[in-house]
Amino acid sequence: MLIIRTVQKMQAYSKEMRRKGKRTGFVPTMGALHEGHLSLIRRARKDNDLVVVSIFVNPCQFGPREDFKKYPRNFKHDASLCKNERVDCIFYPAVQEMYPGNYKTFISVEGLSDALCGKSRPGHFRGVATVVAKLFNIIQPDNAYFGQKDAQQSVIIKKMAADLNMPVSIKVIPTVRDKDGLALSSRNRYLSVREKQDAKVLSQALKLARLLVDGGQRSAQRVAERMKQLIQKKKSLKIEYISLVDADNLVPLTRISGSCIIALAAKVGKTRLIDNLIIRGVS
Amino acid sequence: MLIIRTVQKMQAYSKEMRRKGKRTGFVPTMGALHEGHLSLIRRARKDNDLVVVSIFVNPCQFGPREDFKKYPRNFKHDASLCKNERVDCIFYPAVQEMYPGNYKTFISVEGLSDALCGKSRPGHFRGVATVVAKLFNIIQPDNAYFGQKDAQQSVIIKKMAADLNMPVSIKVIPTVRDKDGLALSSRNRYLSVREKQDAKVLSQALKLARLLVDGGQRSAQRVAERMKQLIQKKKSLKIEYISLVDADNLVPLTRISGSCIIALAAKVGKTRLIDNLIIRGVS
Repeated sequence: MLIIRTVQKMQAYSKEMRRKGKRTGFVPTMGALHEGHLSLIRRARKDNDLVVVSIFVNPCQFGPREDFKKYPRNFKHDASLCKNERVDCIFYPAVQEMYPGNYKTFISVEGLSDALCGKSRPGHFRGVATVVAKLFNIIQPDNAYFGQKDAQQSVIIKKMAADLNMPVSIKVIPTVRDKDGLALSSRNRYLSVREKQDAKVLSQALKLARLLVDGGQRSAQRVAERMKQLIQKKKSLKIEYISLVDADNLVPLTRISGSCIIALAAKVGKTRLIDNLIIRGVS
Repeated sequence: MLIIRTVQKMQAYSKEMRRKGKRTGFVPTMGALHEGHLSLIRRARKDNDLVVVSIFVNPCQFGPREDFKKYPRNFKHDASLCKNERVDCIFYPAVQEMYPGNYKTFISVEGLSDALCGKSRPGHFRGVATVVAKLFNIIQPDNAYFGQKDAQQSVIIKKMAADLNMPVSIKVIPTVRDKDGLALSSRNRYLSVREKQDAKVLSQALKLARLLVDGGQRSAQRVAERMKQLIQKKKSLKIEYISLVDADNLVPLTRISGSCIIALAAKVGKTRLIDNLIIRGVS
């Protein structure tokens, strides 16, 4: 398994692989890999000749009061997980390599970046879109894999790739959950045992939402209300938002129909968690 | 010579050419081709196996009161000029092909887009950067050719390509002038005979600037003053700006040193013209 730290070397490697006609699958990560990431890597392994994983904690997508500094970093462990999954190459650049002094260029996907998580994280999705575009240009993948857990991110990346005619296919892979239903996240390791117990209610609220919709409920407000009531039973949780939005354009729904993302964010103690559910083909 | 009108076909062609190991030179244009464009095409022809020219009047880079609708379009003539220069392929998409309904993604190069022409053309360089990124993703060139006449555009495109790690080399080719020194521009055809006579003074002012700097003048303000005095002798000209800026970051200079762009914009009747001069290695 190759470990490449510079843009120049990575681009030379990508170019050589393309010339050899290798189909490349790319999994962008911020490290602190868990089963969610591994499911993306396994899917990339299955679909491609070559699998490249990037590990880069992108400063651009953290707000000034967010957890950039304390975000978990453990390259050795991540690299051994990648090796187990037969990853061909890890791209592991320093911040200075990705954002040299005097960096000036940013990509905005307008209208999709301000809803949901964008409200409390201004600039976050601009940082995500920008780093993903850079990584695509560096790695030149045929396929790139993202987790459904970051639903808004997936919608934005898909839209950016389509709008800018990027020659890459975006694959969105189902969320991986622990035995209690909690969506896997690198930030789960911030949680105490008690907080982790309480956080279960988030996925329970999404299950409740699905039951309600399956049972014929079409009022977005009513579904959100019932979810809120359930989550509020846990005093350690502070809801940031519960939203039912169109799965393509993230516009809030009044009446549930078509394809709908039910998304939520909540703070459990100091840790911000997100989760979501997609319901398709509601008539 | 191929003429391709859809993104999908163009990307398929580019992919095939890359697989064959062809080195591609790309010249993005808005059509209305003149000797300036042809000099870019000839340079591309010299440096590459394959030459692709795009002809696309990009609505995104025109302001609401600018000349998008009346911008000269003559595809037949442009195509015959391209054929004469042994262009391999013209990419000639419709607006709807490049910007389908619901288009949302834009690229900004911050700090370079507000100076010089950016002041009077808000959003212009965002539109330029965005369409160029799209064209690069569609055509996947090894080299892309831009005219020095659009000095600010060249600096912005170079910065965008570097910041976003685009795998393309940006080549900036000297301005082509008519026998009177007037920089060639598709907009020159808006000028009356008299206006064209008067517009000569713009390149004369740049020549004067070079003489002054060669003679030891290092005060940007003094050089700009002298240029202004010369241009103001022509009553049909209205100066928009005369600026001496750093050639890399477009920051206005007080004292001329290093590499400097002397740039100007003026209205001649209703037609807005720009011109510039780069002076390198001033000590």
